[in-house]
Amino acid sequence: WVDRQSNDLSVVLRFFESVLRTFGALIFVNNVWSGVLFLLACMIHNQFSTLLGLLGIGIAYAVGILMNVPPDRLRNGVATFNGFMVASFVAANAEPFHGVVWNPWLLFPALFFSIISTLIKIALHSVLQHVKLPALNLPFSITTLCFLASQGSTVTPLFPADLFSHPQLANSSTQTYAGSEIARAVFFSISNIYGCDNVTSVCLAWIAVFIASPLLFTMCLLGSCTGTGIAVVLGVAARELATGMWSFNSLLVCGSVGGFFYVWNPFSCALAIFAAAFACVIAGTLYHVLGPVSLPYQALPLFLTDAIFLLALAAYKSRWFVRVEFSEI
Amino acid sequence: WVDRQSNDLSVVLRFFESVLRTFGALIFVNNVWSGVLFLLACMIHNQFSTLLGLLGIGIAYAVGILMNVPPDRLRNGVATFNGFMVASFVAANAEPFHGVVWNPWLLFPALFFSIISTLIKIALHSVLQHVKLPALNLPFSITTLCFLASQGSTVTPLFPADLFSHPQLANSSTQTYAGSEIARAVFFSISNIYGCDNVTSVCLAWIAVFIASPLLFTMCLLGSCTGTGIAVVLGVAARELATGMWSFNSLLVCGSVGGFFYVWNPFSCALAIFAAAFACVIAGTLYHVLGPVSLPYQALPLFLTDAIFLLALAAYKSRWFVRVEFSEI
Amino acid sequence: WVDRQSNDLSVVLRFFESVLRTFGALIFVNNVWSGVLFLLACMIHNQFSTLLGLLGIGIAYAVGILMNVPPDRLRNGVATFNGFMVASFVAANAEPFHGVVWNPWLLFPALFFSIISTLIKIALHSVLQHVKLPALNLPFSITTLCFLASQGSTVTPLFPADLFSHPQLANSSTQTYAGSEIARAVFFSISNIYGCDNVTSVCLAWIAVFIASPLLFTMCLLGSCTGTGIAVVLGVAARELATGMWSFNSLLVCGSVGGFFYVWNPFSCALAIFAAAFACVIAGTLYHVLGPVSLPYQALPLFLTDAIFLLALAAYKSRWFVRVEFSEI
Repeated sequence: WVDRQSNDLSVVLRFFESVLRTFGALIFVNNVWSGVLFLLACMIHNQFSTLLGLLGIGIAYAVGILMNVPPDRLRNGVATFNGFMVASFVAANAEPFHGVVWNPWLLFPALFFSIISTLIKIALHSVLQHVKLPALNLPFSITTLCFLASQGSTVTPLFPADLFSHPQLANSSTQTYAGSEIARAVFFSISNIYGCDNVTSVCLAWIAVFIASPLLFTMCLLGSCTGTGIAVVLGVAARELATGMWSFNSLLVCGSVGGFFYVWNPFSCALAIFAAAFACVIAGTLYHVLGPVSLPYQALPLFLTDAIFLLALAAYKSRWFVRVEFSEI
Repeated sequence: WVDRQSNDLSVVLRFFESVLRTFGALIFVNNVWSGVLFLLACMIHNQFSTLLGLLGIGIAYAVGILMNVPPDRLRNGVATFNGFMVASFVAANAEPFHGVVWNPWLLFPALFFSIISTLIKIALHSVLQHVKLPALNLPFSITTLCFLASQGSTVTPLFPADLFSHPQLANSSTQTYAGSEIARAVFFSISNIYGCDNVTSVCLAWIAVFIASPLLFTMCLLGSCTGTGIAVVLGVAARELATGMWSFNSLLVCGSVGGFFYVWNPFSCALAIFAAAFACVIAGTLYHVLGPVSLPYQALPLFLTDAIFLLALAAYKSRWFVRVEFSEI
Repeated sequence: WVDRQSNDLSVVLRFFESVLRTFGALIFVNNVWSGVLFLLACMIHNQFSTLLGLLGIGIAYAVGILMNVPPDRLRNGVATFNGFMVASFVAANAEPFHGVVWNPWLLFPALFFSIISTLIKIALHSVLQHVKLPALNLPFSITTLCFLASQGSTVTPLFPADLFSHPQLANSSTQTYAGSEIARAVFFSISNIYGCDNVTSVCLAWIAVFIASPLLFTMCLLGSCTGTGIAVVLGVAARELATGMWSFNSLLVCGSVGGFFYVWNPFSCALAIFAAAFACVIAGTLYHVLGPVSLPYQALPLFLTDAIFLLALAAYKSRWFVRVEFSEI
């Protein structure tokens, strides 16, 4: 009886551990203590969306068990982190209901889209694994774009979503960037991954990455700088630059190529920075293309850039680039 | 000599049989008598487009023989039903020529796009079979979008197509739905598959599905209800809802997942309804994205939803979901 | 020592040979003397963009060596011709800098996007080879669309690109085409491939194709005629038709299907012409879809059409169509 109980307890503990690991999976970290910091950072910013996000993890876990997903993939969070991102995105991006943020009706779209994102994850994984490509947060991007767009042209949506409005282009060619805006962009880019844009949360997130892997931290920082630099070259609006929305994809790309998928060496480092630059160019491309339909580019540049670079590096087994082998990605 | 003649006769009979089966293939039915009813339903509505559609089947059959498509795929109609849909769509959606519906010049685009849709079908099948995914009516969607869009921005098209105009969004948030509109939406959704929106045709089509398989009929009805319900949640215009254009993809998805691809059980039934709900969300997404270029979403939600759900269910062989094995899909 | 030197010399010669072969790879020609004529044609039109294009070849070659691309693919130019196209496109399509065409700063985007296009080429090749599909100039299309679009919605781009503006649709339905416009369209379509629209360059290009293969020349001419004919049927603006921008994809499709990928016979010839017609329809489709975001369709119709037809023909090994086997495509 004691055994049974301790077994039950360990199941519960393992579940909580996997929930914490899920938080790290958003940024290629697999570490419980980093997870605690990420959870804290989210909680500080917005309790409602974080709680819905936790529910999203739970539902993704349940769907994973129903669909027979290998326990490993559930335990390290790669199969469930999209559920978190989707549910908390839905909670944070729906328009307030009569001014009330804690709108209980949001439970329905949050759970619905969490389940969908988990199914899309499994579907994509089953195809992409043939070319050794991870689905990353492509399911999150697809699902949230469906959430936003499906209510964009209808008359009276029950769950109105906050469409992304592009700023009017200034006529003058005198866009300048203050140093503080650029520094803020580099620092705050991580906030777009966890959806929490206050200084404390951002500091906690950076610290969480650092304690998991100083190398990953460095590559992420380099990526953030590169993305911000390219955004300046592209001449994006200073107001947008400062939110970090132009550099978070570069951050993730640089971190994943240089600090996760490939063994670090000067070549892979240079390539990671190059990839980060291209991620920002893709962001600009999608920004322009999705403009007329008022949709954000979400994390699509991350997936597209990583897909190109991982496929190109895997094609002919160049000896300068050595891929880290994972059992599960 | 008698043998030879009876052989010739049986070839002709087999061809007619496969033509009738083709009509069922649009809605996952493989039954000659249902085919007769579907043909009747189409004939009642629009003789011209039905005749062009029959020609489309013939041409698709000929292309299939030229390209060496296995006889099985031709006989049960899966390789030819896109030809029917495309040709009859072209005939029905081109603007009348000096007010005349029976425009003989429409033969050219109808045959051209029928051939193209058959080639696209073969091309897609050769790729998608690697992941055990059917092409369904994706060739129809691609081909008809090409037909519509290629003439959308040109000055004086020879075959002007009827672009899809989105209704102006009402400013008031007082969109309400009469019970009759909702009932009509559920009932008429099948009319969008065969392109015939009169009561008699719709009744014939439902009966044809029922005599082929009461289970498929039930799942289709459930899908149509689900799609209509989600469309109400999305708040689409009542006028559009009543045409059934928001629920026919859900109908097909629910029918295919719950009544065709998977052995029916409470789990697959629940999943089919869930998939039907998502198909309507994808319809809303495409409606918003294709709005600026005045294109309809055709049957794209069917393919996208079925692709996600079939891939997800096939990924880890969950014991709750058992796929029906076909020699040919 | 003499051996060593002659070896070095032969390496340099081989490099120059592969540069010349690269020019032919744009139009399915693999011939040094044709390459000389193509180079001449480009030089006559625009020295700056040609020089940057040559640099693009060099950088693509270097990336190819770093990524361990098989020497064969580098030598016959299939791995490097996208580098040329991208670099010269960037040089030719960026807005003049204070009226100066020879803008040295354009080196940066030209080299950046050349590298990217080479990586995309390798990535696509590694996936598409599983279905025996060549990537053709899809990398060029993707990369240049990224170059154009990424600067389309930003406030003050450092390298402003020349977006493609669609002509206002005439209200009258009296678009007529002079015979000279149609003849010019057929003749000048090849100019869109090499980006040089003066008569001498165009003549040189046609001659270069002819000396490489009279069959290819004939099929290209047929394709150009077909594309122009379909464009007239679609009713495109006469001013656009005359530039050949509506027929160059058809030219390439007809040349590739009828004169390169398949053994010539009446069946493959008819199919090539049919494919050329469809390429123009896809061009019209993309023209309409990309209109709201002011992007050109580049060579996307070539890839899409060739993909459909190569896949369809390969699916069931019809005896009417025999594919030429290449070691490298």
